[in-house]
Amino acid sequence: MEIGSGPLSRYHPQPSSQVHKVAMPPKQNVLTEFQTVIKEIFFPDEPFRAFRGQRSHTRFYLVLQAIFPILEWARSYNLQKFKGDLIAGLTIASLCVPQDIAYARLAHLEPQYGLYSSFVPPLIYAFMGSSRDIAIGPVAVVSLLIGTMVQNEIDPSNKLAYRRLVFTATFFAGVTQFALGLFRLGFLIDFLSHAAIVGFMAGAAITIGLQQLKGLLGITNFTKNTDIISVMHSVVGTVHHGWNWQTIVIGLSFLAFLLLTKYIAKKYPKLFWVSAIAPLTSVIVATFCVYITRADKEGVAIVNRIERGINPSSAHEIYWTGDLFLKGFKIGVVAGLIALTEAIAIGRTFAAVKDYNVDGNKEMVAMGTMNIVGSMTSCYVATGSFSRSAVNFMAGCNTAVANIVMSCVVLLTLELITRLFKYTPNAVLASIIIAAVFPLVDIPAAILLWKIDKFDFLACMGAFFGVVFKSVEIGLLIAVAISFAKILLQVTRPRTSVLGRLPGTLVYRNVEQYPNATTVSGIMIIRVDSAIYFSNSNYIKERILRWLSNEEEDLKINSQPRIKYLIVEMSPVTDIDTSGIHSFEELHKTLQNRDVKLVLANPGAIVTEKLHAAEFTKKIGEDMIFLTVADAIEMLSPRIKELL
Amino acid sequence: MEIGSGPLSRYHPQPSSQVHKVAMPPKQNVLTEFQTVIKEIFFPDEPFRAFRGQRSHTRFYLVLQAIFPILEWARSYNLQKFKGDLIAGLTIASLCVPQDIAYARLAHLEPQYGLYSSFVPPLIYAFMGSSRDIAIGPVAVVSLLIGTMVQNEIDPSNKLAYRRLVFTATFFAGVTQFALGLFRLGFLIDFLSHAAIVGFMAGAAITIGLQQLKGLLGITNFTKNTDIISVMHSVVGTVHHGWNWQTIVIGLSFLAFLLLTKYIAKKYPKLFWVSAIAPLTSVIVATFCVYITRADKEGVAIVNRIERGINPSSAHEIYWTGDLFLKGFKIGVVAGLIALTEAIAIGRTFAAVKDYNVDGNKEMVAMGTMNIVGSMTSCYVATGSFSRSAVNFMAGCNTAVANIVMSCVVLLTLELITRLFKYTPNAVLASIIIAAVFPLVDIPAAILLWKIDKFDFLACMGAFFGVVFKSVEIGLLIAVAISFAKILLQVTRPRTSVLGRLPGTLVYRNVEQYPNATTVSGIMIIRVDSAIYFSNSNYIKERILRWLSNEEEDLKINSQPRIKYLIVEMSPVTDIDTSGIHSFEELHKTLQNRDVKLVLANPGAIVTEKLHAAEFTKKIGEDMIFLTVADAIEMLSPRIKELL
Repeated sequence: MEIGSGPLSRYHPQPSSQVHKVAMPPKQNVLTEFQTVIKEIFFPDEPFRAFRGQRSHTRFYLVLQAIFPILEWARSYNLQKFKGDLIAGLTIASLCVPQDIAYARLAHLEPQYGLYSSFVPPLIYAFMGSSRDIAIGPVAVVSLLIGTMVQNEIDPSNKLAYRRLVFTATFFAGVTQFALGLFRLGFLIDFLSHAAIVGFMAGAAITIGLQQLKGLLGITNFTKNTDIISVMHSVVGTVHHGWNWQTIVIGLSFLAFLLLTKYIAKKYPKLFWVSAIAPLTSVIVATFCVYITRADKEGVAIVNRIERGINPSSAHEIYWTGDLFLKGFKIGVVAGLIALTEAIAIGRTFAAVKDYNVDGNKEMVAMGTMNIVGSMTSCYVATGSFSRSAVNFMAGCNTAVANIVMSCVVLLTLELITRLFKYTPNAVLASIIIAAVFPLVDIPAAILLWKIDKFDFLACMGAFFGVVFKSVEIGLLIAVAISFAKILLQVTRPRTSVLGRLPGTLVYRNVEQYPNATTVSGIMIIRVDSAIYFSNSNYIKERILRWLSNEEEDLKINSQPRIKYLIVEMSPVTDIDTSGIHSFEELHKTLQNRDVKLVLANPGAIVTEKLHAAEFTKKIGEDMIFLTVADAIEMLSPRIKELL
Repeated sequence: MEIGSGPLSRYHPQPSSQVHKVAMPPKQNVLTEFQTVIKEIFFPDEPFRAFRGQRSHTRFYLVLQAIFPILEWARSYNLQKFKGDLIAGLTIASLCVPQDIAYARLAHLEPQYGLYSSFVPPLIYAFMGSSRDIAIGPVAVVSLLIGTMVQNEIDPSNKLAYRRLVFTATFFAGVTQFALGLFRLGFLIDFLSHAAIVGFMAGAAITIGLQQLKGLLGITNFTKNTDIISVMHSVVGTVHHGWNWQTIVIGLSFLAFLLLTKYIAKKYPKLFWVSAIAPLTSVIVATFCVYITRADKEGVAIVNRIERGINPSSAHEIYWTGDLFLKGFKIGVVAGLIALTEAIAIGRTFAAVKDYNVDGNKEMVAMGTMNIVGSMTSCYVATGSFSRSAVNFMAGCNTAVANIVMSCVVLLTLELITRLFKYTPNAVLASIIIAAVFPLVDIPAAILLWKIDKFDFLACMGAFFGVVFKSVEIGLLIAVAISFAKILLQVTRPRTSVLGRLPGTLVYRNVEQYPNATTVSGIMIIRVDSAIYFSNSNYIKERILRWLSNEEEDLKINSQPRIKYLIVEMSPVTDIDTSGIHSFEELHKTLQNRDVKLVLANPGAIVTEKLHAAEFTKKIGEDMIFLTVADAIEMLSPRIKELL
């Protein structure tokens, strides 16, 4: 490469083609290239960076530490941190006990299974997880998912078989999560776009809320379906003989109370603990009221019984073969992925706020292990709960010890105080669930989606209406399908734009965005805004030709000189494959037929290499490739004047 | 926007932020935006441009002309064109008659069905198609596809049921093609990458060639499987008692003759007609020899009988319900798509050479109609044949009338001379097939793939080995899967690069490609080479942070001042969605925690709009967004010096 010299070159930018030729990148052999690609796909966060140059026993310890992060942060643990974790743990425990009992009912399981799932999984997570703020346990949406999908296969009244399928599904949820993390396929989770999740969660929240009308109104005959039409039929159809006024009073009053405390917590963030202890308070007060008035004899449905004691083993209850094995696998994969999406989102959010790093793939391994072990200890799918994690954060947690504290409280509950929940009315549990899922209907987020990206909004609405009007699985399918359609669109219809020069500068920009950009007579500049692959190469070629044809039509109408040079600005073209090169050759051929010369500006490293390998540069001529559009114009303008 | 003034501004480029602010694009309402997106996806070639400003009866005529392009070119037809078409038509007819008889055997059908498929479909195509050079009829690969897939369901010895399934599949192939064209989903065909097609075709050619060993060697017991292991077993296993030496002599000698004529035609393009009439010549000579020597009594298998007469109706033979209906649907979709891929590729290639336009979606509608009608007139899936189209082109065709001429010749064959093929030995048909598929094994293309793009080469090899060692469907599946994996990779792992300034210029380029590019102390410039969507937003954020962390490590080691400003060069970022903005907000937060300022350079129109809508520009400050990297450096360098 020649370096420009002379005193004026600094102030009068020379045509850079005299100063720098378009450089060929250093040649990489196939193996290095392959290694780089694999590294970027699977290990983009360089997880082994710390391992470099270490002795082998140190490496072994580092591996152990990678699998059990507790070994790392436990060493710097102190009383100060414990204080924060203790308070946070007690706070989230008070929140999780009533929620667990409620969510287990969402999943059509007996109440103790919710408590089991707040005992073992958080313990496992504390040893293997990396997030310091996440609170582990059953969550509303996953409980709904499990409830509806397993119910489609086995009737919940057949308790043993139903439970067995739930544990099978939980096992496979864990396996899915573990495998994704182990094979570093975590990026697949990113394929559920944020917009689709917003819609899906809102739809799930509405569905869950509707389901609670059974408990809230005291209806005995209720539809199994989750869509809004069926639920409304059940509600309206039983209005004359199925509603129990005492239940309604209990349910609505405590619902009002809970929503009030939530409002207070939102307006005065320092009072977050008010909304945190509200569910437990409601349960205690409601239980007391029902006990005093013996309202259960008046038709108020109560919890009645929570099995005492710690988690029984359930490894023998999992289906290992047969039809239900496959069904459990399918349900498990779906539930596992949804559970992951929530947990990863929580982990990332709090990690960004507190500025520490959370390795997504390691989190998935931790989650997977937690659910695999959980499935063998009578737990169903647990994950991170956003509301509980927020409470955890606000209450001042420092490490995952908060989860350990919560587990201990749940243990004490299971051992000592299950009998206290005998007279707890289902209505108050229903109102706790409704209050819990209320924030999932994120209307401001939806409005923001509408303002920013209409396609995102469409994905959101599609997922929402799919869940509300059809079923959870259909809504999820719509969410995934729209996400994929967006990717397809991005890939097959990349943008191209015509460029013009901004007056007074050597900068070339899109004429649609900068209407005062000037164009040069006889030269047309088109920028291609994407890598050129088989999925879009033909479209790009045809689109360029169409730009040219339309421009030539206009020029002819205005009796202006025709286009002689077509400059393709290649800087956004990060890569090109054989189909792309093929399209370029066809473009070149067509342009030759029309007596237009093809010029390339600013091809990137990889593209330059491939164009050379395909001998395309020889075909169009090495003098037709420039470093910048400005250089090309500088060199070609004089020739235009000669030709005119 | 303020325009810079002063006599020196032209020669000393001012910091452009004084001259031009980053412009907000003109606001588009939702409906216009939606219309533009739909237009670009489905109507990128502006098919209705000609309709603008026309009266309604003219529009009606234009619509009719769009459906039947023959109405357009027939008006300018003359004797000169007919001469060319007549010669071309006769040439391709001489080529197609022996090929049709041979290909029908590939599809396990009686010979006349091949001829039927060269009679009706080309006629339909001549009325509805747009390509002037394509030659329509049965082709080897699609015949193989039909043969293997239908054989898996119904044994070919059960002639009626087998035929019925073939017609059902042909019907659905036509429906698929028609639907794709009608709903302008033609771009889906582009998802089979060129590389995968090369591998698939080569594998299919090898498979077809291996199948011909039965006819060539005169083996009676032959495997039904198509993979190379099974075929080799059959061949080797029957070596002692199954090979017929007379058959081998006939087969090999004519194969040598055909390959020789192909070589001559390649070396001396003017003698293309030699290889074009070679198959018919071989058939005539071989038939004569067998007739004279009555070699059929010596064990040489012959065609024996071709049903006389024009296509019988077969609409009643299609399965309209039941299990075979679904199977026919599945086979039809696959065969239809493969047939389309070939035809579209042929259409585009010749259109580029002769510089006329072929509307892919209109072609698909024509192909679909042709196969739908064909399925009801005893034809099986027909499409464009590359070798025949090349002969058509070299022989001087001008319009699709060449296909009409060929149809007429086939008609005459069916009516008058089917009896002449009685003594045609199968061996010569086998050698015709082998010679026909020989060019499909495109080794130079594979070598080029290796040189240009290793991933493309992998796709090619995957498809090839899948077809050869497993089955046609598996090979196709592998081809599609690898194509999709490549798109996934492009979408989830976009490139990012660190930029530096080329000495003596204001141009910033990738430091890996231009090692002498200089960097500015305290400032880091990273370019993101892709739109930022949910599929890659988290990766991009983490990658940028990793660039920063690694750089800061190096700076610390060398005791150099740390990074104060991180400039993100946004020109390749053609679009951003809510997940992308979310990631930018997280990036901004993290950088704030590290006391690094986030700066954006050259955001495009749409991105600028969305950043404003999300109030992100307010968050980082409007003075942190510049038109070019050079401007940003110009404004920020002084501040760096102050901070140091």
